[in-house]
Parts: sequence; structure tokens; C-alpha cells
Amino acid sequence: MRSLELAEIYAPLQADLARVEERLKSRCKVGSPYLSELLEYSLRANGGKRLRPMLTLLSGKFYHYNLDLLLPMATAVEIMHTATLIHDDAIDKSAVRRGRTTVYKLWGEEKAVLLGDYLFAEAGSLTASTQNLRAIKLFAETLKAISSGELNQSFNAFNLKQSRADYIQRVVQKTAALFVLSTESGAALSQSPEEAIQVLVEYGYNLGIAFQIVDDVLDFVATEKELGKPVGADLVQGTLTLPAMFLLEKYPGNNPVREWFEKRDNPEDIRRAIEMVRDSSIPKECYQVAAEYSARACRNLNQLPPNPAREILLNLADYLLNRRS
Amino acid sequence: MRSLELAEIYAPLQADLARVEERLKSRCKVGSPYLSELLEYSLRANGGKRLRPMLTLLSGKFYHYNLDLLLPMATAVEIMHTATLIHDDAIDKSAVRRGRTTVYKLWGEEKAVLLGDYLFAEAGSLTASTQNLRAIKLFAETLKAISSGELNQSFNAFNLKQSRADYIQRVVQKTAALFVLSTESGAALSQSPEEAIQVLVEYGYNLGIAFQIVDDVLDFVATEKELGKPVGADLVQGTLTLPAMFLLEKYPGNNPVREWFEKRDNPEDIRRAIEMVRDSSIPKECYQVAAEYSARACRNLNQLPPNPAREILLNLADYLLNRRS
Repeated sequence: MRSLELAEIYAPLQADLARVEERLKSRCKVGSPYLSELLEYSLRANGGKRLRPMLTLLSGKFYHYNLDLLLPMATAVEIMHTATLIHDDAIDKSAVRRGRTTVYKLWGEEKAVLLGDYLFAEAGSLTASTQNLRAIKLFAETLKAISSGELNQSFNAFNLKQSRADYIQRVVQKTAALFVLSTESGAALSQSPEEAIQVLVEYGYNLGIAFQIVDDVLDFVATEKELGKPVGADLVQGTLTLPAMFLLEKYPGNNPVREWFEKRDNPEDIRRAIEMVRDSSIPKECYQVAAEYSARACRNLNQLPPNPAREILLNLADYLLNRRS
Repeated sequence: MRSLELAEIYAPLQADLARVEERLKSRCKVGSPYLSELLEYSLRANGGKRLRPMLTLLSGKFYHYNLDLLLPMATAVEIMHTATLIHDDAIDKSAVRRGRTTVYKLWGEEKAVLLGDYLFAEAGSLTASTQNLRAIKLFAETLKAISSGELNQSFNAFNLKQSRADYIQRVVQKTAALFVLSTESGAALSQSPEEAIQVLVEYGYNLGIAFQIVDDVLDFVATEKELGKPVGADLVQGTLTLPAMFLLEKYPGNNPVREWFEKRDNPEDIRRAIEMVRDSSIPKECYQVAAEYSARACRNLNQLPPNPAREILLNLADYLLNRRS
């Protein structure tokens, strides 16, 4: 079976996703023209997949689909995601993301930090507007998890002594937590029974891990054009991801990742590490790990009521595993 | 009448404030030892006035004083305040605050940004634990106001064409909003009737403006030792505050503030501006403006039930007007 394109997968919910897009646009209209400009630049459709709001909408499809609650929540998870990217770019001093110049590069670090703060608050405000205490509490816990994960990554930059369990734990905090917020809130806001919510939590959790592993492989094997940003960024930042861990295991002696992490004096090591990973079985092995998480994400979806959204969740998991960007 | 010391004013609520201190301490115990260290450094008693949690406790005193709700909320406002200071220091590259080295200076910008994010989330989580939707919504709106105010200040750095209304608007966003969160949440969490809540909102709003004006005067007239940070920081950052505005009005021609804002090449201008403000009637005039807001803060407190907390709010307003740090 050929893989579906994202637009095909999204098609049944395209109209609702367009309403999320409208909500995002409406959040850009504020008193200050300076802030409006920043908001429009960062929230407008920009080649992002709008994956997290789609997960919220899909997770809301199994019981009482209520757009009055799901739209603000779906908008909130996308805004929260955007805020974390803006802070990440400021911290990493990244100039490009998704093929566009970053807020950090265009407006400077100060604006990027404050805009991120504003967007966290905006996302919190939208979440609060659902009046759902479960979603509200989960929102705050998710932001704690994400910033803990980022801090963890920062404290472990250029640290070679990290286990695969450390890596997975960080991925859960950095990435899977927000996937879980997206699915769990969608399920909770549509009055799903607890067992159904847990199936969607399991989906979000494992899909998030699979997603991040694929991201980390693409940082080695994709082209800059596909990524919309420079290749090898994780190694530049000293972030030890699964492909680099596998490379260290395969070549415990003289190893460009080890050289780079220990000395940080020769960027040629980064180029060599990328080449060695590409020429090895490591991408395939990483994809196998990702595929296991993806399968785990989907294994209990059949416990949900039969509904087209179930098929979409399956297709989405498949798509995310095979994506090139 | 001699002015009271802060400890005397706080005395009747000292035991409850100590419980806020315990809560702050308990939030420092987390899985990651790195993060714990950052949290302990930034949240432990550090010479801060704990003013905002005190406002929450005091505002909760007039109807059903419920520490199960007031303690998490009081802890939340202090943590939110701390988070904004940590981001401010990172943005301004400040090395010292309250006589201590900043998180930014000790751990770098990356940790400071992420720690601030974590603390915003922690404050949100504590607020959510009150299960009070009014407090929760207000929390999110307050963080929006604070970051809008900071962005506004950042976009207007070194801009000489700002009116006093612009200044007050920024002060409301940057400072008074959090004072209002502190008082309004305390009042709402103690089941106060709406009229009483509004009296405390008015108190927080006007006290916050008075507080910031005094802060802005102290940046000119206090010593570095009193401030716990360098004098003249606002001028260095290009922030036009009330004393600088008054100086521009008094000396419209050759003026060191104008020189500095327009050319930014001679720090001697900053020294001259400070000296001219100190030697003029400007501090006194600014204090008069602050005193008007302070009086407005207190004018309707007599509509609240007679209660020792009413006296404390009055004493606090008086103290904040006459403080030197």
C-alpha cells in the first residue's frame, strides 16, 4: 500500500482544522501593532503540520464531539508548541526553522523570550476557557514536563554517559508530553469514558516517542531542504540522540561523536559522524525502534468505538513514521 | 507617627507566611538534582519581601479565610514573580539582584529561560490546584499582561516620544497586573462578595502603580547597596520612567537623557541624569504621584468588614511608599 499524503489523511477534518487556523489568526489581533506583527509571523500557516491540534480534534471524535471546547483546546496545543519552538530557537541561536527565518534571528533574543512567555499565557488562557479542570491541570503539568526535559537536555549537553533509558525519558518530557496533552484533552473534552481516554493517552505517548526518534534520525539522514533547517543540529548542540548512541555502541574506540563531544574543536567530526550513520544500518535500526513505539501507540485503538477517526489515527502513525520532514 | 518595619507589619500573619515559605521549599524537591539546585537557589528566602503572597493572604482575611486554597495561590504568585525576574535578568544580562548573583550569571541564559518557563508552569499548576476558574483565568491573563508590558517596554527602548499615559499603561501591565492577581485571587478564594473583591482589585491595581513609581525613583536616588543592584539600570536599558520624563520636561533642550537615548555613546550622560534628578524636586514630585495612587488604593478599604487585615493593608501601602529598597 502506498503511503498517504498528510493532506489526504487530514481531509475528513479539513474544515475543522481550518477553524483552528481561524482561531490562531484571531489571537494575532491585539492592541499593540508590534506584538500583532510578532504573533502573525509566528502563528500563521507556515508549513507546520498542525499535528497537535489535529490529534486533539481526532481524539474528540469518539464520543461527544464538541467544537466549542475542542477548538480552543486545539488552538492552545498549537500555540504552546509554537512557544516552545520560539524559546528553543532563542536558546540555540537558530536562524532558520521550516525554511523560514526565526523570530530570534529577526527580532532578537529579548523579543523571542517575551513572545514565548506571552504565547504560553495565551495557550493557558485558551485552555482555561474550556473550564475543564483536567485539561487545565494537564496543561500546566505538560509545560513543566517540557521545560524539565529541555533543562535535562541542556544539563546533559556533550555528556557521553547517557543511557537509552535517559534518552527515552527526555523524549517523553520534551515531546511525548505535549502529544499526550493533545490527545487526552481532546478525549476528556468529549466526555469519553476513562478507558477510552487511556487508550488515547497511550496513543499520544507512544506516538510522541516514535515521532521524536524519527526527528532525531532525520537530523542525520535528511537534506537541509527537507528539514527546513541545517542537518546535524543535535550534534552541534551536544544533544546525544539515538543514532549517535548507536554509533558510539558500534564504534566504541575512535568515534567522531566521542571526539566532538570531548574536544569540540573540529566540526569535521560532525560531518564524519553524519556520514558514518548514513552509511550504516543505524537509520534502519532506529526506524525499527520508532516502529515499535508506533505499533504500541496503535495497539489498543480497536477498543475505541468504530469511527472514521480510528482509521485516521492509524494512517497518521504510519505517515509520521515514513515522513521526510 | 514613625513608619513601621516590614516585619512588624507582617507579624500577625507571620505564621501563615512561614507556611508559604515551606510550600516554596517543597516545590524545590524534584527528580533532577540539577533542577532542584536551580529551584532552591531561586525560590529560597533571599531578601525578597514576599509582598505578593502577603497580599493574597491579607485579601483572604475578610470572609472565609481558607489556607488550603490561599497557600497554593500565595505560593503561585510568588513563583510567577520569581519567573518574571529570572527572564528579565536573562534578557537584560543582569549579574546581580537583591545583592545576589543572578541565575543568568551563574548558569547562563539557556538555563535561565528554561527555569523561568518551568516556574511559570509550576505557578500555573499551583493555581489550577485551587480548582477556582476565576483565579485560573486571571492567572493566564496576568501572564499575558506582564509579557505584553515587557514587550511594550522592549519595543519602546530608547524611544523619547512616550507620554505619561504610555508609562502608566506599561506599569499596569508589568507590575500592577500581578498585584491585582494577588489580591483578587485571595478575595475570590475566600468567597468574598463581588463588591469586596472589587475593593481589593482597586487596592492591588493602584498599589502596584505606586510601587512601580517608587521603584523607578529608587533607581535614581537609592544607593547600590540599598537597591541590591546597580543604580541607573533603567537608563542603561533605555527604559523611560517617570523621573526621566520629568527631567525631559524640565530641561527640554540640552538634556542628558535625550543625549543618551539618541546617541548611546557616552555613559557619562547617565551619571549626569542621575545627578540632575537627585538635585532637583523630581523625586518629591514622583513621590507625590505615587502617593496619589497609594491613596486611591486605600480609599475604599473601609467598605471591607472591620478586620485587622484592613489596618495591615493601610500600613503596607504606607511602608511601600517610604521604603528605600
